[in-house]
Amino acid sequence: MGNTSYIWYDKRIKGKRWDALMEIGIIGSGAVGLLSAAYLSKYHEVTLYTRRKEQADLINNAGITLVRGERHENISINLGAEENTSYKEPLLIITVKQYQLDSILDALKKSPSKTVLFLQNGMSHIPLLQTLKRHHIFVGTVEHGALKLSDNSVKHTGLGCIKVSSLYPDDCLTELPILQMQMEHFPFEYISDWKEMMSRKLLVNACINPLTALLRVPNGELASNPMFNKMTESVFRESMKVLALQKGQEEWEHVMDICRITAQNRSSMLKDIEEGRKTEIDGIIGCLINQAEAEKLEVPVLHFLYNAIRGMEG
Amino acid sequence: MGNTSYIWYDKRIKGKRWDALMEIGIIGSGAVGLLSAAYLSKYHEVTLYTRRKEQADLINNAGITLVRGERHENISINLGAEENTSYKEPLLIITVKQYQLDSILDALKKSPSKTVLFLQNGMSHIPLLQTLKRHHIFVGTVEHGALKLSDNSVKHTGLGCIKVSSLYPDDCLTELPILQMQMEHFPFEYISDWKEMMSRKLLVNACINPLTALLRVPNGELASNPMFNKMTESVFRESMKVLALQKGQEEWEHVMDICRITAQNRSSMLKDIEEGRKTEIDGIIGCLINQAEAEKLEVPVLHFLYNAIRGMEG
Repeated sequence: MGNTSYIWYDKRIKGKRWDALMEIGIIGSGAVGLLSAAYLSKYHEVTLYTRRKEQADLINNAGITLVRGERHENISINLGAEENTSYKEPLLIITVKQYQLDSILDALKKSPSKTVLFLQNGMSHIPLLQTLKRHHIFVGTVEHGALKLSDNSVKHTGLGCIKVSSLYPDDCLTELPILQMQMEHFPFEYISDWKEMMSRKLLVNACINPLTALLRVPNGELASNPMFNKMTESVFRESMKVLALQKGQEEWEHVMDICRITAQNRSSMLKDIEEGRKTEIDGIIGCLINQAEAEKLEVPVLHFLYNAIRGMEG
Repeated sequence: MGNTSYIWYDKRIKGKRWDALMEIGIIGSGAVGLLSAAYLSKYHEVTLYTRRKEQADLINNAGITLVRGERHENISINLGAEENTSYKEPLLIITVKQYQLDSILDALKKSPSKTVLFLQNGMSHIPLLQTLKRHHIFVGTVEHGALKLSDNSVKHTGLGCIKVSSLYPDDCLTELPILQMQMEHFPFEYISDWKEMMSRKLLVNACINPLTALLRVPNGELASNPMFNKMTESVFRESMKVLALQKGQEEWEHVMDICRITAQNRSSMLKDIEEGRKTEIDGIIGCLINQAEAEKLEVPVLHFLYNAIRGMEG
């Protein structure tokens, strides 16, 4: 790696693997947090920061079970969990929801310089990240399918990748060492234009998540039901206008491909609604509405959809 | 009355009431059909036309049970049911859904002159009625709450009225003799401007029915949930633009009053969706969209809502 700041030092005793490359802190222990911790701890020294002490204790005692197809793998070497907010590792990966970022950003403002990778949906948090000048800030979009089965088990339901991009053009690629080591089943891909990368992901999320939650249908119905497909198209058209993405036909095919590939999946927003949780609507549609207002664009369908999901959150 | 064509003549034997005023045929035996038959047969000779023979047989054998509050009243005098399409009475009241009108209109085209009162939601059937030049055509809006409990029992859940208006300005009031006799609990009200009457009812239906079906909530939530209220307002605004009704604030208060008065009710469209039936979306939102297209008005939210309900009909 050639970057001495990432040389591993001993801090745990049990089950140590001495070839671990660097210390990584993963903040947030939902599906993406558990999945990242499971894969990255095969090569790195990983600390998973949880909100609840029981979850940290469980993972420290029993490791994480990673399910992929028929294979169940228990992972505990190079892996620890903590429920404090020390965030002491030189590389942090933030997997919490966009609306849970506040306290983490406060901690980062007081912390020495680190490399931080943010994996939130939506783009409304980007201006906040741009205030973290001291750190090397990367943003990423998760294109894996992952299902949290329990506090310490996760199912890798769709093999994809994590796309990452630097928020500051002068941060070079080598600031994110995980990029240098391509792991089987858990690859990273570098994208030069963060805005285009985030916009394309936001477009997909805007088209699929709120509509599947409103209609309470799996993703595939947005492609297969002709009337729901028309609704998706109207969300797509207003979102494209705001995001000013080129290649409309290509983007539409991309959204439809994802609906078809994940046809049986219930989107995270649908699950949030079904389980009475807060959704990511502010980071997704709220973000598009704010941008539309700033540019005096009319987006009546996005407003309608935003109000529906906010009302359904109850 | 002064209109000899309505003088009653004997045709049934059992339980005859000799003071019946006129023969009325009621076509359609849902909640409104059963309710109308129950009340009108107290003063008139009523034939209820059903689609299914079992229902006609049941009503002929057991009458109709009318439930109002704690009171259960069995009605069989002056009341018969038939499942044919003879429609021989001089006054017909059509209570089927708008999308079930076709065969009835065909029959009317071949029939001698009658007085016909149409009680459909929406306005998309009006041009069809305007082709029935031979008859005296009235349209009406039902402002009763009624719930069909079984094939021969109906609950009068909300005491209101039926507003009626003549489709042709030269048809005078006396053509609709039921107007002359105001029955307790089942009054009729004459409105001079059919278009305004139908538009106001369409506005209420457009605001309440599809949204409650989409969100699967009782009527009251469109007033009490602030986000659902914003959605209702956006449907209201686009509908007002199309219907060109004056007095926006007054109409909005009217819609909200109905949401509050019927707060616990599940709208007919919500019930249609829950029970897997075809809805009246074409006659309500479809009608507004057609009118908007004719006048080159943009109604993106109405399109979105239309597609949602059509898609949910499955």
